[in-house]
Amino acid sequence: MGRVTARRRATRLTADTAAHRAETLAVEEPLEIRLNGNPLTITMRTPGADVELAQGFLLTEGVIGGRDDVLAARYCQSDQGPNTYNVLDVTLAPELPMPEMDMRRNFYTTSSCGICGKASLDAVTTISRHCPGDDPTAVAADSLLALPDRLRSAQKVFASTGGLHAAGLFAADGDLLVVREDIGRHNAVDKVIGWALEHGRIPLSGTVLMVSGRASFELTQKAVMAGIPIMAAVSAPSSLAVDLATQSGLTLVGFLRGDSMNVYSRRDRVKH
Amino acid sequence: MGRVTARRRATRLTADTAAHRAETLAVEEPLEIRLNGNPLTITMRTPGADVELAQGFLLTEGVIGGRDDVLAARYCQSDQGPNTYNVLDVTLAPELPMPEMDMRRNFYTTSSCGICGKASLDAVTTISRHCPGDDPTAVAADSLLALPDRLRSAQKVFASTGGLHAAGLFAADGDLLVVREDIGRHNAVDKVIGWALEHGRIPLSGTVLMVSGRASFELTQKAVMAGIPIMAAVSAPSSLAVDLATQSGLTLVGFLRGDSMNVYSRRDRVKH
Repeated sequence: MGRVTARRRATRLTADTAAHRAETLAVEEPLEIRLNGNPLTITMRTPGADVELAQGFLLTEGVIGGRDDVLAARYCQSDQGPNTYNVLDVTLAPELPMPEMDMRRNFYTTSSCGICGKASLDAVTTISRHCPGDDPTAVAADSLLALPDRLRSAQKVFASTGGLHAAGLFAADGDLLVVREDIGRHNAVDKVIGWALEHGRIPLSGTVLMVSGRASFELTQKAVMAGIPIMAAVSAPSSLAVDLATQSGLTLVGFLRGDSMNVYSRRDRVKH
Repeated sequence: MGRVTARRRATRLTADTAAHRAETLAVEEPLEIRLNGNPLTITMRTPGADVELAQGFLLTEGVIGGRDDVLAARYCQSDQGPNTYNVLDVTLAPELPMPEMDMRRNFYTTSSCGICGKASLDAVTTISRHCPGDDPTAVAADSLLALPDRLRSAQKVFASTGGLHAAGLFAADGDLLVVREDIGRHNAVDKVIGWALEHGRIPLSGTVLMVSGRASFELTQKAVMAGIPIMAAVSAPSSLAVDLATQSGLTLVGFLRGDSMNVYSRRDRVKH
């Protein structure tokens, strides 16, 4: 679509020099996701793979369970404004219930003041149709240690902008299945999972999800919702990410860089 | 509050060794912000400085304009559940209008399909009461180059967890005014701006906001809404962040690391 990167003028300053030049930046634009014509959410994302993004988001929020739950996804055009390729309307299968429109609250809320991490964990394990606890996948430690380099070499846009997060999906033997980049970490993961949904691969048993940054609760939730058994991050996990991985049977790997890693849960899946 | 870090068991693996040990992680917990008793939003955050976080969020979303707009902020207790210190109810001054409850849409949406980056920019510059365009602040390039080290040395929790983002507010001469850390970049910035609001320093003229990661539209929006004239990031900005900075008169600096930086807008504020 030619909208993944953009050029802007900048001045590069050092103590002694000033050079004017055009810099390549990652594009950030709003995407509104609509369900059956009703606005659902807006995310700031890097354009491209928007249908994957929308479908991955809907799957990891528990709105849809598979490819058959979506009849159509199309960029919205109306007589009130031009089609900017920033509004995507998803038509659900007619038998599917419309979700509550306040998606932010799905995983976090209670009707009382009892909101807490524990409630967030319980909500994910209750809603998920594909908790990875029983997945017998195992992966060699050496194979995991090779993933950061593989992910980085597959990142086309990062190299030119320095500004994108990446998520890569790998087979247990280390083969790269798909990589997606986005200005938002959660969007990159949604795009990967949306790709899997379009290819009929949900639940994603037998795979490893690798993310370029930290492992937050939100990213871990997405892995669990898609049935991914192993998730690895270059940087640190949060407390709640580790707790969710432990409760749902996900193998969570952090600080995967250089020649070492930390395994926080279900270490039996890492052959060593 | 003792909830900023937590310990979890992990196994550190290298090719040859496996060591079991307790790791220190950044805590992530949901915070629900309520307005006059009505749920407004939920953010996953690192506990601590929650009142600052809520007030910074409300200011940068345009709900409040200053300290006098908030009568009280208290952790919610109800007879339906215990007080988990994860629900914060903000009471607005009685003359203040309640915002639309779907805050996500404030800055992005139109009633038509015309949603796009341009509309997002225009919304910010329309809503902001403190656009920094006329701020005469200037800062020496050398002073900017020293900020990343100053920010890093002020990050208490990052050193132990490797897992937190930081935002620091500096005077034009490089003095650190306040630093806040959080699992979420936007939360760290909201906490800094909330601190300023509590200290009667909005608009934040004459200051530099430094963030540990990238400069997204959302973070840039927060700087503009608080009247900050100069924002600097260790990593890359997005296209829309540069466009917003240009339109609103914010000096945006990216790739501020080592002995150089890129200045994307209003370079006249950087003395060189």
